[in-house]
Amino acid sequence: MPKLLVVHGAGMNMRGKVQLDVFGPMKLPEYDEHIRQYAAEHGFEVDIFHSNIEGEVINKFYEAEERGVDACIFNPAGFSSGYRALYAAMSQVKFPSIELHISNPARRGGQSEVAKVARGVFVGFGIFGYSLAMRGLKDILAKK
Amino acid sequence: MPKLLVVHGAGMNMRGKVQLDVFGPMKLPEYDEHIRQYAAEHGFEVDIFHSNIEGEVINKFYEAEERGVDACIFNPAGFSSGYRALYAAMSQVKFPSIELHISNPARRGGQSEVAKVARGVFVGFGIFGYSLAMRGLKDILAKK
Amino acid sequence: MPKLLVVHGAGMNMRGKVQLDVFGPMKLPEYDEHIRQYAAEHGFEVDIFHSNIEGEVINKFYEAEERGVDACIFNPAGFSSGYRALYAAMSQVKFPSIELHISNPARRGGQSEVAKVARGVFVGFGIFGYSLAMRGLKDILAKK
Amino acid sequence: MPKLLVVHGAGMNMRGKVQLDVFGPMKLPEYDEHIRQYAAEHGFEVDIFHSNIEGEVINKFYEAEERGVDACIFNPAGFSSGYRALYAAMSQVKFPSIELHISNPARRGGQSEVAKVARGVFVGFGIFGYSLAMRGLKDILAKK
Amino acid sequence: MPKLLVVHGAGMNMRGKVQLDVFGPMKLPEYDEHIRQYAAEHGFEVDIFHSNIEGEVINKFYEAEERGVDACIFNPAGFSSGYRALYAAMSQVKFPSIELHISNPARRGGQSEVAKVARGVFVGFGIFGYSLAMRGLKDILAKK
Amino acid sequence: MPKLLVVHGAGMNMRGKVQLDVFGPMKLPEYDEHIRQYAAEHGFEVDIFHSNIEGEVINKFYEAEERGVDACIFNPAGFSSGYRALYAAMSQVKFPSIELHISNPARRGGQSEVAKVARGVFVGFGIFGYSLAMRGLKDILAKK
Amino acid sequence: MPKLLVVHGAGMNMRGKVQLDVFGPMKLPEYDEHIRQYAAEHGFEVDIFHSNIEGEVINKFYEAEERGVDACIFNPAGFSSGYRALYAAMSQVKFPSIELHISNPARRGGQSEVAKVARGVFVGFGIFGYSLAMRGLKDILAKK
Amino acid sequence: MPKLLVVHGAGMNMRGKVQLDVFGPMKLPEYDEHIRQYAAEHGFEVDIFHSNIEGEVINKFYEAEERGVDACIFNPAGFSSGYRALYAAMSQVKFPSIELHISNPARRGGQSEVAKVARGVFVGFGIFGYSLAMRGLKDILAKK
Amino acid sequence: MPKLLVVHGAGMNMRGKVQLDVFGPMKLPEYDEHIRQYAAEHGFEVDIFHSNIEGEVINKFYEAEERGVDACIFNPAGFSSGYRALYAAMSQVKFPSIELHISNPARRGGQSEVAKVARGVFVGFGIFGYSLAMRGLKDILAKK
Amino acid sequence: MPKLLVVHGAGMNMRGKVQLDVFGPMKLPEYDEHIRQYAAEHGFEVDIFHSNIEGEVINKFYEAEERGVDACIFNPAGFSSGYRALYAAMSQVKFPSIELHISNPARRGGQSEVAKVARGVFVGFGIFGYSLAMRGLKDILAKK
Amino acid sequence: MPKLLVVHGAGMNMRGKVQLDVFGPMKLPEYDEHIRQYAAEHGFEVDIFHSNIEGEVINKFYEAEERGVDACIFNPAGFSSGYRALYAAMSQVKFPSIELHISNPARRGGQSEVAKVARGVFVGFGIFGYSLAMRGLKDILAKK
Amino acid sequence: MPKLLVVHGAGMNMRGKVQLDVFGPMKLPEYDEHIRQYAAEHGFEVDIFHSNIEGEVINKFYEAEERGVDACIFNPAGFSSGYRALYAAMSQVKFPSIELHISNPARRGGQSEVAKVARGVFVGFGIFGYSLAMRGLKDILAKK
Repeated sequence: MPKLLVVHGAGMNMRGKVQLDVFGPMKLPEYDEHIRQYAAEHGFEVDIFHSNIEGEVINKFYEAEERGVDACIFNPAGFSSGYRALYAAMSQVKFPSIELHISNPARRGGQSEVAKVARGVFVGFGIFGYSLAMRGLKDILAKK
Repeated sequence: MPKLLVVHGAGMNMRGKVQLDVFGPMKLPEYDEHIRQYAAEHGFEVDIFHSNIEGEVINKFYEAEERGVDACIFNPAGFSSGYRALYAAMSQVKFPSIELHISNPARRGGQSEVAKVARGVFVGFGIFGYSLAMRGLKDILAKK
Repeated sequence: MPKLLVVHGAGMNMRGKVQLDVFGPMKLPEYDEHIRQYAAEHGFEVDIFHSNIEGEVINKFYEAEERGVDACIFNPAGFSSGYRALYAAMSQVKFPSIELHISNPARRGGQSEVAKVARGVFVGFGIFGYSLAMRGLKDILAKK
Repeated sequence: MPKLLVVHGAGMNMRGKVQLDVFGPMKLPEYDEHIRQYAAEHGFEVDIFHSNIEGEVINKFYEAEERGVDACIFNPAGFSSGYRALYAAMSQVKFPSIELHISNPARRGGQSEVAKVARGVFVGFGIFGYSLAMRGLKDILAKK
Repeated sequence: MPKLLVVHGAGMNMRGKVQLDVFGPMKLPEYDEHIRQYAAEHGFEVDIFHSNIEGEVINKFYEAEERGVDACIFNPAGFSSGYRALYAAMSQVKFPSIELHISNPARRGGQSEVAKVARGVFVGFGIFGYSLAMRGLKDILAKK
Repeated sequence: MPKLLVVHGAGMNMRGKVQLDVFGPMKLPEYDEHIRQYAAEHGFEVDIFHSNIEGEVINKFYEAEERGVDACIFNPAGFSSGYRALYAAMSQVKFPSIELHISNPARRGGQSEVAKVARGVFVGFGIFGYSLAMRGLKDILAKK
Repeated sequence: MPKLLVVHGAGMNMRGKVQLDVFGPMKLPEYDEHIRQYAAEHGFEVDIFHSNIEGEVINKFYEAEERGVDACIFNPAGFSSGYRALYAAMSQVKFPSIELHISNPARRGGQSEVAKVARGVFVGFGIFGYSLAMRGLKDILAKK
Repeated sequence: MPKLLVVHGAGMNMRGKVQLDVFGPMKLPEYDEHIRQYAAEHGFEVDIFHSNIEGEVINKFYEAEERGVDACIFNPAGFSSGYRALYAAMSQVKFPSIELHISNPARRGGQSEVAKVARGVFVGFGIFGYSLAMRGLKDILAKK
Repeated sequence: MPKLLVVHGAGMNMRGKVQLDVFGPMKLPEYDEHIRQYAAEHGFEVDIFHSNIEGEVINKFYEAEERGVDACIFNPAGFSSGYRALYAAMSQVKFPSIELHISNPARRGGQSEVAKVARGVFVGFGIFGYSLAMRGLKDILAKK
Repeated sequence: MPKLLVVHGAGMNMRGKVQLDVFGPMKLPEYDEHIRQYAAEHGFEVDIFHSNIEGEVINKFYEAEERGVDACIFNPAGFSSGYRALYAAMSQVKFPSIELHISNPARRGGQSEVAKVARGVFVGFGIFGYSLAMRGLKDILAKK
Repeated sequence: MPKLLVVHGAGMNMRGKVQLDVFGPMKLPEYDEHIRQYAAEHGFEVDIFHSNIEGEVINKFYEAEERGVDACIFNPAGFSSGYRALYAAMSQVKFPSIELHISNPARRGGQSEVAKVARGVFVGFGIFGYSLAMRGLKDILAKK
Repeated sequence: MPKLLVVHGAGMNMRGKVQLDVFGPMKLPEYDEHIRQYAAEHGFEVDIFHSNIEGEVINKFYEAEERGVDACIFNPAGFSSGYRALYAAMSQVKFPSIELHISNPARRGGQSEVAKVARGVFVGFGIFGYSLAMRGLKDILAKK
């Protein structure tokens, strides 16, 4: 069973507590519940990680590289731009990362620097986007 | 059965004939075959359109608006940036558009202005991305 | 009787169908009705043209040059900036063009590159702006 | 009878004395004569003001606000860009201002920041532009 | 008793008459009443000055330098950026100036160039900010 | 008694040990002593926090949001610009934050991005600025 | 006999009718006459194409690719900069394109984006430049 | 006897009172004394003017044009850059203006926009520069 | 014996595991082995530190300052640009820091902001660069 | 027989010794041999000059002007951008200069400032480009 | 008798031979004749130098430093901007340099980087400017 | 014995004569004495070259290439940025160049373009830096 790393970037722990008009009322534990369920459906062994500290996310990526993770879904949130050491780490590890946003930051004027080091991007499909991303990753991994 | 418009931007008619190292050997008719099959699987009535002329793509968006299309998947290709009248048209019509790229242009230094007027974005999953986008659109349309 | 060309730029065919909060409910045929009535009042033989394809608008300007048009009123809409071949064409023909906008795009952050190749500009007076522009053109043509 | 404020910006007192190749030989008193005559034709009670001191123009806009002026025609001339306190004042008062230029500054490479705070713009119709602007303002005021 | 100069920049005379949603309903004479009362509480001899003319504010700063003013509280309003001769004057006089804003212009995207030539900055505490600034100035003057 | 969070940004632990010519000889424990005394005077229950790790400061803001803090005084120091995840966190929490600097960084050419997400700003009044900020916050909280 | 495509960009149909001081009195049919004669001399089977519609030029390049054209001489005129889909098409086709200008646009401040996707550039030799370009292409094709 | 206008820009009235390290201890009346003496030596009828109000300087230039001034020496000081209406006025009048600085602002990082509308420039020769400028103007006027 | 701090920036723990074509196969423990041997040769008491968390590196610099370190060799890696709080910390401590890179990032288009706060720079000599830097530091410390 | 000056810019003496993948194996004496042969064919008296010192190239242009050279072919190589005194010299002399490049620098991201002061440009035809340029110059000189 | 160095920058040897509409018909030997005569009048021992090679001008400045020159008048001409090694040399030598231009390059859009390293600037007084500059230098040297 | 080229850039001949506060009192012949001694210690046959003329430095690099130099140490001084033909030459030759600065120009705001074409960089170790660079080069040459 392929190993999937799901990373929540800075501020994801406040989802459902602040900015409800943009991201809706869902809290992070509910995110994780959906993600685990989608992982079960698509046959992934999932490891979910969140930190507001850039260096801890970097450490996670390197640790995942060492233990042979197959793919990653990364919702950068507060880490969407300006965190160069993190993007360097993402470009160094061998497994593919998918950038995922619940809503579409480009419509609010946001810019992401993550896409440059990602294998693919999923934007604007809410929590269901995680299911779509897993479905897509399954297709990619099968082709390897 | 919801109506789906699939638009191929400038240069898509040369897929499989040029730049094979970037986009692979698949030709546009094969794209369309896959797209029709995915549409059948996901229950969409699909209308596929291609033009290298910006104004004809604008006309298609307006015509789709008039006949009540429910959603669009747009692979902008050569129209990814600089075509303001087209982006204005996309932001005016009421149905949601999904920006889709077969590969990840951000890794090659490309920038897209389409995301600002799109509902969502799918990047980097090859032809299978169309299936994922349809699956996602079904979820969105079901929630309306 | 002097010959007047009225050109509607990209997206004008959707007036009254989309963005009603910005441009109001008037549809393009109603625009044309008013324009024809104003032309009758001010004594112009009027030719009204619309296209969403930049090159067709360029062709129209050149064709007007050939058949001796005296003046043009151009509402660029989606062609307001970025269409250099069109602006080159406008600067080449000998008859004067007036740039006209129904509302004031500068208040919405818009920028127009048309003014650099226009004889004059009318902004913010709604459909009645066409009447004012014709009244002004009459004055200009009388002075020649 | 509606009250109209006509403001001449910096350098308008030298019209007809310098730069005759750009603005022609008409002097400011002749401008005013035409403006008063147009105002009589269109039924406006007109107040004409000129100053080369930005702050005095700001004061005039505020004073006009206090005594209930209905509309303004402003030829900014030397105040066309860079005078933020003036543009702030124009955006604060409740009556509409029309930006008017005798010739077309965009053709000479000029840029105006006044349009962003104006209701409408008239460019390139010489002294007759004041008549056209009044005709347009009458239409706007009638609709209120 | 230390001498305090309070300067109101361009447009302050319209406070309470326009932009009530941003600055509230308080008019300039009421500002001055509060300021005089705060000055009495903190033991300052206060001189309040307003002008919409940049040069008159420059003159005021120079005149204050000549008669030995101890400190200044300056609400630049319309003079917040772009007025280099004024900032030059502020940097030349020997008494300290405090930049004060009733609301927080940075939240509305505004930028101030006054801070570079000010001793300190107070932003976002309404009319009470004048009292806080005086309290702070008393502390600074006591330390000299 | 209202709850106040005081946050010291990166490098504040070196105050009084390095750069004494800019910030003076006061060490962080002395800062905290003054702050606790001012808090007692103004009736605030104060929680003081320092970290050189951006993510720990983010965590502190979120933790404060959860336990119902009423206001924050933040001296960003090394975090004054470039730390976007932190500014995002500050803009998400509901309690107001005041940006405070002991000296005036603008005079040294510094720029702060914190003001855009702060309720107010206090610059240039040394340690006494904390007292002024608390006095101002008391006024704000009383008005709610 | 090698196949040569000659493409005239936007506005070339007005040569000899407008801007005679820059481009001289020669009309497009005369251009074509010279080009056919030069082609005969140098032994090329020539296909001449003109359009003011970017997409039609793109289509022509792709059509030429399909039928095995050996080389192209492109005078971009109005399409010299800003037409990204066209430049993408030029870089995709396998046959070499030569950018040709009758006069030297760099001396008039013009910039061309075509050179980046061209094999070579000929500027400033009038209609005779077509003969030189064919002579050069013959040399290139002989070396393949 | 030729008429010479000498204009002192914003802040010149504080010379000798502030910034003594840059401009020395000479006060404006002493400047004027030297200037009158130099004018007597070189045979100029001199009119000296100072204002901190941009518009009053504009008025002075226009007034000088009307009464037939032959040349001007302008020390812009605080008006060195950013005052477009003033530079527009300087470029409109027919008599030549010499830009003069007592010290060399370029060495302190300053930039002047006055040179673009001046006939000549004198920088870095202290009060004696006025004598040199008059000597130079005499040579220019003699050649007319 | 002088105390030397050696700091490895973000991502150094992955050396020899990823990007082998750029940095070679040497792993971090081998780096440290070489560094300890060079330190023994040059007579330094060495303390080696690595973290992917910016704030922990800042803490290390401050802690080194407190315990009297004599010099530092810093290989910033992922922290080469954008980490302002770190560079502020480096400029505050009194001991000199040497920036060291194994390869030459400028040849790959990289830019470092560390040089501005470093005493010296060593680039492009592989692991042996540490020996050279220690030799150079010995020379510097001997001169104090 | 018309006189032709051929100038080789900085680094041309290393052609065929370095960067063989870009410019091929031909050495400068072989260039000159071809150039002399082409000159003989086209009837030019040719003077070939090379220097890596900008000022010597400037001197050559001026010396050519003095002795009545009819035209120049200049391959700028290392002098393609940034050498303003050289471009000034080229724009001052009366004979026309042709900019020539063996390969197409625009494809490698290069930019040339020489085109602005050249009569024409030949790019991308290898050594044969010199023959084409001479053929073109003959046509130009014949028309004078 | 004080020693004066007069340096003519790149292209000065072509004065009176090219660009006569800008610089007039005077040739360099006539410049030198005037300069020698002015030097005699003002009591300077003059050394005149011209080169089109930047490094030779640098050498001249250093050689003048060594033999104790008192002042320099430099007309940079083609060396007005972009020649950093030359400006570095000028800022290193101890004697003052005066930048001098015969006409006013700012009116033609030119920018000079020489002023930043010059003691003073003279622009726009033709050959007589050398006399004025010497008169000014005499005053400066007398004050030392 | 490996051959080493040492190049001193523009202005190095004035070391010890000007700017003593930045570079110290050592003169160029003393530099060379140290360099020859270091070369003897490290076993290099050294050739030292200095010129203030860019083209002569270019010639030296090419000449060194021809006679088989093994490595170069280049202190660019006045040639640190803006000299593109020189950097092109450095990137063309096959032997490695080390950029060396006596002090650290980055701390004084300087930027070097030489690093992009250098093999390595040594900054901030005074004259001893030459010894370190030779030690490092020996290590590099040994590995070849």
